[in-house]
Amino acid sequence: MKNLSILGSTGSIGTQTLDIVRQFPGEFKVAALSCNGNIELLKKQIEEFKPKCAVVYDEEKADLLAGQVDIQVMGGMSGLLSIVKLHEVDTVVNSLVGSIGVLPTVEAIHYFKNVALANKETLVTAGSVVMNEVKKMDIKLIPIDSEHSAIWQCLNGEDIRNVNKLMITCSGGAFKNKSKEELQDVSAALALKHPTWDMGAKITIDCATLMNKGFEVIEAHWLYGIDYDRIQVVMHPQSVIHGLVEFCDHSVIAQMGVPSMKIPIQYALTYPKRFENDNLPKLDLAKLKQLNFKEPDFELFPCLKYAYDAGRVGGTLPAVMNAANEVAVKYYLENKLKFLDIPKLIKEAMDSHTVIQEPSLDEIMDVDGLVKKSTAKKIENA
Amino acid sequence: MKNLSILGSTGSIGTQTLDIVRQFPGEFKVAALSCNGNIELLKKQIEEFKPKCAVVYDEEKADLLAGQVDIQVMGGMSGLLSIVKLHEVDTVVNSLVGSIGVLPTVEAIHYFKNVALANKETLVTAGSVVMNEVKKMDIKLIPIDSEHSAIWQCLNGEDIRNVNKLMITCSGGAFKNKSKEELQDVSAALALKHPTWDMGAKITIDCATLMNKGFEVIEAHWLYGIDYDRIQVVMHPQSVIHGLVEFCDHSVIAQMGVPSMKIPIQYALTYPKRFENDNLPKLDLAKLKQLNFKEPDFELFPCLKYAYDAGRVGGTLPAVMNAANEVAVKYYLENKLKFLDIPKLIKEAMDSHTVIQEPSLDEIMDVDGLVKKSTAKKIENA
Repeated sequence: MKNLSILGSTGSIGTQTLDIVRQFPGEFKVAALSCNGNIELLKKQIEEFKPKCAVVYDEEKADLLAGQVDIQVMGGMSGLLSIVKLHEVDTVVNSLVGSIGVLPTVEAIHYFKNVALANKETLVTAGSVVMNEVKKMDIKLIPIDSEHSAIWQCLNGEDIRNVNKLMITCSGGAFKNKSKEELQDVSAALALKHPTWDMGAKITIDCATLMNKGFEVIEAHWLYGIDYDRIQVVMHPQSVIHGLVEFCDHSVIAQMGVPSMKIPIQYALTYPKRFENDNLPKLDLAKLKQLNFKEPDFELFPCLKYAYDAGRVGGTLPAVMNAANEVAVKYYLENKLKFLDIPKLIKEAMDSHTVIQEPSLDEIMDVDGLVKKSTAKKIENA
Repeated sequence: MKNLSILGSTGSIGTQTLDIVRQFPGEFKVAALSCNGNIELLKKQIEEFKPKCAVVYDEEKADLLAGQVDIQVMGGMSGLLSIVKLHEVDTVVNSLVGSIGVLPTVEAIHYFKNVALANKETLVTAGSVVMNEVKKMDIKLIPIDSEHSAIWQCLNGEDIRNVNKLMITCSGGAFKNKSKEELQDVSAALALKHPTWDMGAKITIDCATLMNKGFEVIEAHWLYGIDYDRIQVVMHPQSVIHGLVEFCDHSVIAQMGVPSMKIPIQYALTYPKRFENDNLPKLDLAKLKQLNFKEPDFELFPCLKYAYDAGRVGGTLPAVMNAANEVAVKYYLENKLKFLDIPKLIKEAMDSHTVIQEPSLDEIMDVDGLVKKSTAKKIENA
């Protein structure tokens, strides 16, 4: 039986993780749950899964919930850092959104926990620090993201030294067929209509800008130790092939499936095993009839290019890119920013940053904070 | 270094096997070569690869060649059986065409040799006997066929008990877009124009009738121990995805590549390693743009249905199907039979056969001989 601490249990990945947990009562136990502020749902989850403790990131709401349940309730980052190191926990599911996910991942690794990782910002902003810890502590950092789960599965039984190239696919997001002119005035409401995946708001906007795919390129670099020149993005509107590995003999292994996050979530929880689950959707190729592929358009969606640039330069630059994006997307979701201002703000932040190479975690988190502040100020003053 | 005995070295698979061997002089040595009757090419191969001995199946031509080279030359089945058990050989490449490939495979296994198998008839006619020997002697029977090599690679690092379903793809062969009426008068010359694969004559006709895909279903059953109900054929005209495995968590792993037999041949030779080889063609999904899939038409191409039927009944029935097909294709290639008479003759042979369950190898080879004789007689007397 695996004992889980689930960070972000009321979000899209969190609730789907609990769906899987619910289906295998003998296999998983929930030791801790956390949310940002949705205490109504967290309360229900506490009643059902009976964790030992819970965290509400919003401290005021934490106090509110504490009066309503009979388990320990903590608040803020200190709460998150407490529940990743609980003695009985062996796997931390990190489905936090944004760079607040970085420190809990690092803390979990310090305490010898395996981490099932959905938080993109962990590896985007602090990939070098995190991977050093993973190696030092010899724990498993198992990706939940469908693309990285795909590559993880393609590499089963294979020697990483035989890899020529990793390929991650990209649906193209909500605006895949739009022209530069049309992109001027696209609303957040429109951007939230993802063609194939049903996900949280922030990541859905990141899909529309292709920033999300850029994050995944950087994550793939850190997870698999592969140069940026050997990580390719392939546009694939059906989101059926999630990731592919080309080996040195030009044989290509691909992982496929209906676009449902439950499949990679379950795999991350059951790894290295696979559990039978007929509730998961089944792929029917003959019914699908057709799969399409094309090159990404780096000019129309420059965030993808910025990610390659930031990844190649390294140091604190990816953290800068991520921080500027996080703030820009927040304002875009509030209809206070235009769609094309997202890449513009990211580029400005990257251009004006003096990169620190081999930064410490503190330096990274400082840069993250400073860029978020300056980007917000720039938007407010515009 | 691997020491090879190559059966059928002048054919399509044989010459491509030698192309791979040529590229890795430090990795492979050729101990023996064999051909059916193309002694001109075999002589050249002997000069280049300097095997210890050679076999020409046609005894007269064996005598002819013996006078021209300074190594031992043998003839007939006894020659083939001799070169699979040479002391220095560790891997036998069986790229013979037809049921003459069965006995050399079994003999090789008896002598603890690994077998890289391209001969379809080995498992189609004698799957049960062969797989029992493979288990008893604990050798590796490594498929060369692109579809089975694909599934072999998809299963790397996976537990076979987690497999839900195997899928093998089918280009559709030369007549994939023909109607029943059009199929009445299609010539062998037309059938030999395969849309995606460049192969020998017999197998190209088997592709046009879909008998080849039927053989592969039976081979997959024996190689992987999976029920016929869980082996699916998917029509896929581009021949880029070669095989897929659906696991119990509905994750699907697929192997892909440019349709070139050199990729699976090299993999069978280097297994469990992969060798870097930039001479092998590279897949470019974005350039391909599109992959298509549909269900097979069992009515228009009944040979595929006969293979499922024969496989499910088992015993000597698959050997009967294969023998009738082998003779029918021979006559069709000589323009002495109509295309639609191939399935007709197979069905008649299967219907009139009294199945022997759990047959010995002798019983299988007897049935093979008898059905070939009776089918030939039927065609000659028609």
